[in-house]
Order: sequence, then C-alpha cells, then structure tokens
Amino acid sequence: MELFTAIKSRRAVKHYDATSKMSEADFQKIMSAALLSPTSYNIQHWRFVRVSNPQQREEIQGAAWGQEQVTGASELLILCADTQAWQDRPERYWADASQEAQDMLVPMLQDFYRGREEVQRDEAFRSCGMAAQTIMLAAKALGYDSCPMIGFDAPAVGQLIKLPENYVIGMMITLGTAAKQANGRGGQLPLEQVLFENEF
Amino acid sequence: MELFTAIKSRRAVKHYDATSKMSEADFQKIMSAALLSPTSYNIQHWRFVRVSNPQQREEIQGAAWGQEQVTGASELLILCADTQAWQDRPERYWADASQEAQDMLVPMLQDFYRGREEVQRDEAFRSCGMAAQTIMLAAKALGYDSCPMIGFDAPAVGQLIKLPENYVIGMMITLGTAAKQANGRGGQLPLEQVLFENEF
Repeated sequence: MELFTAIKSRRAVKHYDATSKMSEADFQKIMSAALLSPTSYNIQHWRFVRVSNPQQREEIQGAAWGQEQVTGASELLILCADTQAWQDRPERYWADASQEAQDMLVPMLQDFYRGREEVQRDEAFRSCGMAAQTIMLAAKALGYDSCPMIGFDAPAVGQLIKLPENYVIGMMITLGTAAKQANGRGGQLPLEQVLFENEF
Repeated sequence: MELFTAIKSRRAVKHYDATSKMSEADFQKIMSAALLSPTSYNIQHWRFVRVSNPQQREEIQGAAWGQEQVTGASELLILCADTQAWQDRPERYWADASQEAQDMLVPMLQDFYRGREEVQRDEAFRSCGMAAQTIMLAAKALGYDSCPMIGFDAPAVGQLIKLPENYVIGMMITLGTAAKQANGRGGQLPLEQVLFENEF
C-alpha cells in the first residue's frame, strides 16, 4: 500500500471480526517492520508481548475497563521497554559496525543514560511510539486495522505479564480485521495551531 | 512509495546537501500526514517548531554538540508537546463528533490526566514518537532523508525556542536531501530476543 494511503486510512478500530485470524506470515512481516523503527543509539530497547492465551486476554481485558477489542482482535501486543538496556550488553547494538564505531558508540550510549532516570523513561515512551506507528501502518498496508491503547491499569497488566523490574509498558495495540469501521475523525486541529516558526 | 519500502529504506542520515531545499508543498504534505498520527483521546498535544532562521539554527547546533545536520539539513523540526493540553479547551479535540460523544469524552479525558504528572509526560513522548515516525516515513516517500535526534541539551534548546512552561521537547528531526547515505545498520537484535509470548 502507498504510504500516504496507509497514513490517511489508519484509524483506531475497536470492533473486530472475532472469527478472522491474522496469518502468521503477516504477523511476522509486521514485527520485522517494527524492528526497523529507529531507537536512540540503536538501543532497540522495546520488548513486545504477544498475548495469545485466551485466559490471559480476558484478565488483561479486566484491567482495561472491559474494552471489547482486547479479546475481540486477532492479536494483542503489549509494547514494553527495558529502561536499563543501555547497560545490558550494549555491544550487541553495534555488532555489525566497525570496531572503531563500536569503540566510540558503546561508551557514548552508556554515558548518555547513566544516572539519568527521566531520560531513560522518556526514551522508552518515545521508542515505543515510533515502533507503534510502524506496526499500525504495516498492519494497515496488509489489510488489517489496529487500535492504540493506553486506557488500562498499567501496574495490573504489568503483574499479569510478569513485567521485569525497570521495564515500562509503553502502550498496547490490538490488530485484526475490522467488524465495524471507526467513526469519522473527531476534530482535527489545523496546522497553524500546532506549527510554530523558530520559537513559540 | 510503498509502505514497506519506506520503512526499510528510512535511515538516520547526518550529511545533507546544503544547497538542496525541500519544497514548501512537500513540507506541507509531510506535516499534514503528521497530524493524522494517533494521540490518546485525540488530544493532539504535539507542537512543532520549524527552525528556518539561520542564526537560530546555529545556536541550536551549539546546544547539540555541533552536529552537522542541524544546520546542513533543509528543515529542522523540534517536536514538543503541551503536557497540559488535556485542560486547554478539550472540546476542540472532538468538535466534529456527536454531542453525545463529546459529553462522554471530554470529562473522560480530563479525569484520565488530572493530577497524573507522569502519565502526562509519558503521553507527550509517546505521541511525539508516533508523529516522528510518520514524519520520517512521509519524508522518505517523497524522496528525502531524515535524522531523529535526542543528542542535545534540551533545557538550552528550550530556552532558544522559548518553550512554554509545562511543554516538553520530545525530540528533533532534520529533513533534507542526503549528501551521504547512512552506514549499514549497526546490529539488529533478532525478533526472538524482543518478542515474548503471553508474559516475560
């Protein structure tokens, strides 16, 4: 699908055809695309939890105000990030780069994040956001719809998925075949209200 | 451009042809696409600062460790977000929705964010990330390259752009015509290392 068509037609879809299953090939294609999303210093600190177990889905739905799409969609992905990835074998993020590049980048990455908890957390959400948009657009291009979700009890979902310490949940995404399309866009702010020249 | 081609070919480009200028029509097309990125409750709290003034560019470059792309690229965009947008005339985010939907969503939005500073900040970075990926892919589809940047002194850049109180800087993006393509990808983690089934 042409990129701008995907961007325009992607909408948050909450009602899915529960009988329609995403093919494994399509799921893999979407996730392979997600892995090409940028991360600072190529840190790749996102961690994705694919919830296939029906009982786990129901429990997560209970922690998400009962929202239909959590169990109705073919796929439920929980986008998490390891805020300490900067100190977890960082040389692997540059394994294919020159030795010279590795020798420069690994200490730079560690110096950038060390002792900066807010920067670590901000980066987790930023990276999850970039990966999320990649996933939703890739799904759209393959004929599926998606719903980005933050309306859930994050600590409760964290317990259900055994979220490790120092990880955060960035958001959830449902993916599948729409049973009912989204309503029209709610009310778009014009560009003039959000774009500034040189300064505020 | 086909979506997956854009995803695969988007790379962080740091060296730009300084004589090549992005057309205004292309800039507008990219920004119009950015505005279709999802935000929670359609809050649209991103604010974009387009830095066209050469002196402002140089000062920002000084706050970004002198990185070449800050002045070399045709466009420099600073992605910010208003963490208090939830209480700034929220009815406008749903102006085109039914009265019933507005009556439900506006109080829901406010209840979700009120008094939750961490949620407000996390949402700012998440939304900037989703918009950033839209912008970078849209640029790629139009034949431009981009560079996502977090390596800068955010408080110093905030001062230069007169960042209002309660706004945050999510990241910067440079956009333009590459003079030198990026090196090969540094070292991609395999999907098995970042994808989990049902729980960690």
